[in-house]
Amino acid sequence: MSKNLTSRSEDYSKWYNELVIKADMAENSAVRGCMVIKPYGYAIWEKMQAELDRMFKETGHQNAYFPLFVPKSLFEAEEKNAKGFAKECAIVTHYRLENDPDNEGKLRVDPTSKLEEELIVRPTSEAIIWHTYKGWIQSYRDLPLLINQWANVVRWEMRTRLFLRTAEFLWQEGHTAHETRKEAMVEAELMNNVYAEFAENFMAIPVIKGIKTESERFAGAEETFCIEALMQDGKALQAGTSHFLGQNFAKAFDVKFTNKEGKQDYVWATSWGVSTRLMGALIMTHSDDKGLVLPPNLAPNQVVIVPIYRNDEQLEEITNVANNLMSELRTKGISVKFDNRTTFRPGAKFAQHELQGVPLRIAIGPKDLENGTVELARRDTLSKEVINLDNLGDKVKDLLKEIQNSLFQKALDFRASHTTRVDTFDEFKDVLENKGGFISAHWDGTSETEDKIKELTKASIRCIPLDVKEETGKCVFTGNPSKQRVLFAKAY
Amino acid sequence: MSKNLTSRSEDYSKWYNELVIKADMAENSAVRGCMVIKPYGYAIWEKMQAELDRMFKETGHQNAYFPLFVPKSLFEAEEKNAKGFAKECAIVTHYRLENDPDNEGKLRVDPTSKLEEELIVRPTSEAIIWHTYKGWIQSYRDLPLLINQWANVVRWEMRTRLFLRTAEFLWQEGHTAHETRKEAMVEAELMNNVYAEFAENFMAIPVIKGIKTESERFAGAEETFCIEALMQDGKALQAGTSHFLGQNFAKAFDVKFTNKEGKQDYVWATSWGVSTRLMGALIMTHSDDKGLVLPPNLAPNQVVIVPIYRNDEQLEEITNVANNLMSELRTKGISVKFDNRTTFRPGAKFAQHELQGVPLRIAIGPKDLENGTVELARRDTLSKEVINLDNLGDKVKDLLKEIQNSLFQKALDFRASHTTRVDTFDEFKDVLENKGGFISAHWDGTSETEDKIKELTKASIRCIPLDVKEETGKCVFTGNPSKQRVLFAKAY
Repeated sequence: MSKNLTSRSEDYSKWYNELVIKADMAENSAVRGCMVIKPYGYAIWEKMQAELDRMFKETGHQNAYFPLFVPKSLFEAEEKNAKGFAKECAIVTHYRLENDPDNEGKLRVDPTSKLEEELIVRPTSEAIIWHTYKGWIQSYRDLPLLINQWANVVRWEMRTRLFLRTAEFLWQEGHTAHETRKEAMVEAELMNNVYAEFAENFMAIPVIKGIKTESERFAGAEETFCIEALMQDGKALQAGTSHFLGQNFAKAFDVKFTNKEGKQDYVWATSWGVSTRLMGALIMTHSDDKGLVLPPNLAPNQVVIVPIYRNDEQLEEITNVANNLMSELRTKGISVKFDNRTTFRPGAKFAQHELQGVPLRIAIGPKDLENGTVELARRDTLSKEVINLDNLGDKVKDLLKEIQNSLFQKALDFRASHTTRVDTFDEFKDVLENKGGFISAHWDGTSETEDKIKELTKASIRCIPLDVKEETGKCVFTGNPSKQRVLFAKAY
Repeated sequence: MSKNLTSRSEDYSKWYNELVIKADMAENSAVRGCMVIKPYGYAIWEKMQAELDRMFKETGHQNAYFPLFVPKSLFEAEEKNAKGFAKECAIVTHYRLENDPDNEGKLRVDPTSKLEEELIVRPTSEAIIWHTYKGWIQSYRDLPLLINQWANVVRWEMRTRLFLRTAEFLWQEGHTAHETRKEAMVEAELMNNVYAEFAENFMAIPVIKGIKTESERFAGAEETFCIEALMQDGKALQAGTSHFLGQNFAKAFDVKFTNKEGKQDYVWATSWGVSTRLMGALIMTHSDDKGLVLPPNLAPNQVVIVPIYRNDEQLEEITNVANNLMSELRTKGISVKFDNRTTFRPGAKFAQHELQGVPLRIAIGPKDLENGTVELARRDTLSKEVINLDNLGDKVKDLLKEIQNSLFQKALDFRASHTTRVDTFDEFKDVLENKGGFISAHWDGTSETEDKIKELTKASIRCIPLDVKEETGKCVFTGNPSKQRVLFAKAY
């Protein structure tokens, strides 16, 4: 169990890969680059889904479902978007297998089932959705159209890692249509704010809200808002993006509406998404050398109760105490599991729950029965205390809140101590090499400079932060004038 | 709106197709045989999902997620299953597009990206899941393994119809592994019972629980349990299936476990699923010539309030009444929408809500303001009454329950009057032709007879009902001895 986990300082990347497997979150499958999300990992993803879905609905969005496949002719309609995804598309070319005459019991592709037009497995759904929207939008009365989809998408990535970069992943993609440029821009920023709120308040991950530079924008977007998080190894992770698509897709798919003045105009669009990549962000933000650390909001079980007993009589007494405690906790909305498996010893159970990041562990033994106490252990601080059973429910509720806040604060402090303002390129390289984290530096605004810096240091511009005041200065690389600092980092 | 809907008696099939479109449930997409599920249809599907998911978890199942693709070598490992689906598989053969040199701005499949092994888009996931289970199961301690997946699947059907038969559909598929034959059989029947309970109590659709004949079994199953519903046109619809898979997949994928006696054995398996096909069953069970009729449990809005006013002052007063009423209803757990759109007249709103099957409509006009009343209209009976605002919340709650029960009873009565016991083949053909519905008849138990009857009449054996007592008799077709009546019908 945890004793076999590589430590973060030893090899962060190995630590991550091992943790995902050992904590029973996900594993690689027989299909190159595709993962199996195991029940424990999926239960966490379900909690994310439920909260995001609630937030989307609260902001007026409805769910719908669009086809998995995109005919090639639609896929290529918006050229920039098509070009951006063309090199990583799974392509369906046939629709039938037949018996292989050369291999008894085996099958082969039936060559007579070749499709007239190839189908692309969606890497994102703008094309099929905007083709559909053409039929849904005639007048301003049909706008705004605020739709979200929960779906699987496929991007044929060459180097894959569980959750962080997989050929198939699960996500949600919002696709909205609006009367005016301004309204669409407001929507794009609103949804980026929803993501930020979700990341910070629910996942306890502090994020920087910003916009992407032109070269980092979504293919087909005019502006990409994003939230950027900082992982414990000092690398950044893009946790969500929200795109203002202008009229690009409306023009490519001829989606016009009659406005209030009776004139025809193309509609304005946004799209926005977060994916199972967030699972990677979650793991890398909070976890430690002993395993997963879960914010209580995302823990499938917030509390686990482990009985410690020598005979059936003791187990029965402990079970009575545990049952009372569980019903008290459940009425307070706390999820709790009584781990009374007979096939594992307490020590093995402790190790498993530690590895899987259960926020609070309650152990009840014979002494506790005598004294009316329990042993309460926090996963995040690894601290333990023996406390009285009285009012334990309130205590647990408060503690879960405290853990949630404390994890956020810890990550925030880490980010603060790993965000460095630099003004020279030597300093830039030095910080990047020896400290990592975000580097706040002036940039002259050209893609050329951005590319050069990336080439030399592997650091990219993560975003132009939204909440930083304008400040004139000189580009850290060229010395040319700059009007705002941007955030650089190496990134996942 | 509804006045344009073809009546059921005129053309049932046309009525269905029109209703799905006009009620804004779903539509055909640009991809042959694939549908777009529109927000109103998807909201109903979400309600089904939530309830089923709750029932699965209550019976000890956990969700997980497995890859969309199945490598051909895994797909063909269980031969019967592979053979059953081979002719309807979407096949991925390439993973990259390139610029088409002959067509500027267009793309074509990059021939150098041909996959070494083709990937099948899952038509069902037994193969990829059992390949995965091999790594998860070593000992009896790992059993039972009770897993469900919510996913999209693709079956390349030639003749498609919205919800009833589509190339891509949404479903859930449970896949469980057990120590013994008996335990797996109990699980398969349990999940069929869960489906029956869901269909009857939640969807208000009465179903017959039964087992399939050998020729109607799932490819690779040793026994298929099913629930069969009867549509208003007298055709049956298979609403869910649960399969006992024996050790077929365990053997094909070499999944063995060490049992309590320390011996190695293959595990026993089940799989079970329901899909967006249930949407079709829902529509065809309850709806009428004016449109959709929704059981309150499945209605995205159980109540809609429509204001009728001549000026802003009246609207304001009505809004006050509506707001109070809405908060009263919501505290009782009733979903309600205030339809105060200014772009539509009350008549158009009435027509829309009728078409979309909102169970209760409340209209509030100037007279109601004077009298402290509202007009309450039931969608299922189309009856209206003017009633007092006092205790309206309780009244609405009771009515919703009554509607839910009444829809079930109505469907049950219809089925009772459309289930006919016949003892001669002439009678069989006569009932099938002139009355439709289920035909309860003796059958000699051979596939030959079953095939002949199907060939001659298009009626198939829907199931061998589980709750019918054994009764000796003579086969309706061959006159050979039979020990139980089975249910025949034409089917969707």
